[in-house]
Amino acid sequence: MNIAVFGTGTVGPAVAAALVALGHDVVIGTRDPEATLARTEAGPMGGVPFAQWHAEHPGIRLTTFADAAAGADLIVNATNGSGSLPALTAAGEENLAGKVIMDIANPLDFSQGFPPSLNPVNTDSLGEQLQRAFPAARVVKTLNTMNASVMVDPGSVAGGDHSVFVSGNDVDAKARVSGLLADLGHRDIIDLGDITTARGTEMLLPVWLRLWGALGNADFNFKIAR
Amino acid sequence: MNIAVFGTGTVGPAVAAALVALGHDVVIGTRDPEATLARTEAGPMGGVPFAQWHAEHPGIRLTTFADAAAGADLIVNATNGSGSLPALTAAGEENLAGKVIMDIANPLDFSQGFPPSLNPVNTDSLGEQLQRAFPAARVVKTLNTMNASVMVDPGSVAGGDHSVFVSGNDVDAKARVSGLLADLGHRDIIDLGDITTARGTEMLLPVWLRLWGALGNADFNFKIAR
Repeated sequence: MNIAVFGTGTVGPAVAAALVALGHDVVIGTRDPEATLARTEAGPMGGVPFAQWHAEHPGIRLTTFADAAAGADLIVNATNGSGSLPALTAAGEENLAGKVIMDIANPLDFSQGFPPSLNPVNTDSLGEQLQRAFPAARVVKTLNTMNASVMVDPGSVAGGDHSVFVSGNDVDAKARVSGLLADLGHRDIIDLGDITTARGTEMLLPVWLRLWGALGNADFNFKIAR
Repeated sequence: MNIAVFGTGTVGPAVAAALVALGHDVVIGTRDPEATLARTEAGPMGGVPFAQWHAEHPGIRLTTFADAAAGADLIVNATNGSGSLPALTAAGEENLAGKVIMDIANPLDFSQGFPPSLNPVNTDSLGEQLQRAFPAARVVKTLNTMNASVMVDPGSVAGGDHSVFVSGNDVDAKARVSGLLADLGHRDIIDLGDITTARGTEMLLPVWLRLWGALGNADFNFKIAR
């Protein structure tokens, strides 16, 4: 599949590399490729600067949001939450129409410091905002409830015995995303329903952040025991 | 221990009976005992009317919030979220001072129908509201992330292999509550930190409600796989 991954932070490159390993053709989309390659600061989690990561992954082309989306069958939104709507707008409505948008971002608001709050929250969600903004696209919320390393290597936590959620209005889009999740090694994929159920999974973030503090690391995930 | 359980819906009686089975002296507090005993409608989950349940549990006295709190070492808040502050206010600040309030309620707002939203949410929580309103009490948020039957019989789901959270400012109060949770059969008790962490566990409710729909029953619980 031709996949565009939006976002050059911790999550985007991790997901892009994992999808390449599964045999997909992957490009990374960013606002300004030259500016992204010029960044020299370490990643937010102490990772290498994007240019260094990119040099180590020469098969993954970096391009604009619009160019990446134009050639893609499926788009992974791994931008930060506040940048998601601008990124998809820059991609262009015509480049999103009919396509699956796998939205793995969270609308975290750090404006008041740590812990962040969510915006939107409770009666709306980022997933719903994206679906409303691009009604011809098929948004599926997933993977936003775990660390990037767990997204792409679920077996690294509890032998993979934990859960991942999908929310979306389009049954075929959810099936395609669920196929990708299974290929990544996710075994318990729970379809919560339409895109409004993304409110619930985005609202898992506050307890996720507190668990990170209480447990001292991010190597955990939610499992729905039943 | 002398324990007062506030609330005569599904949760309060279930918790009261379980605490009696553990050997505690338990009373149930309600706004108006005569009115509660006069109710003839079934419980919200199809349970028996309170008066019938009460007749089957003659050892558990029903009294006013204030009288119940006055004689208690620990108070379980199992009222509905919108009634929690009024219930504790009716109990009287002097009857709450120094005592542990085990807050197992959720601030669900059904005013716009199903699914409910939360109020407060995101930058505040019911647990924090109660602690602010009664600064001399020691509020511990817990058990609000699962069905009543799982609260009192954790072994009924996945052999008890799942998690429960505690949030509160007072270390001794959290230790006492954690002891009760262990006595009920909870094995993975995660201390998230101070009472502000109740925001995270209350914000689990939206996905809990959607899981209830997706799974078709409430016999599940969150486990933190790690």
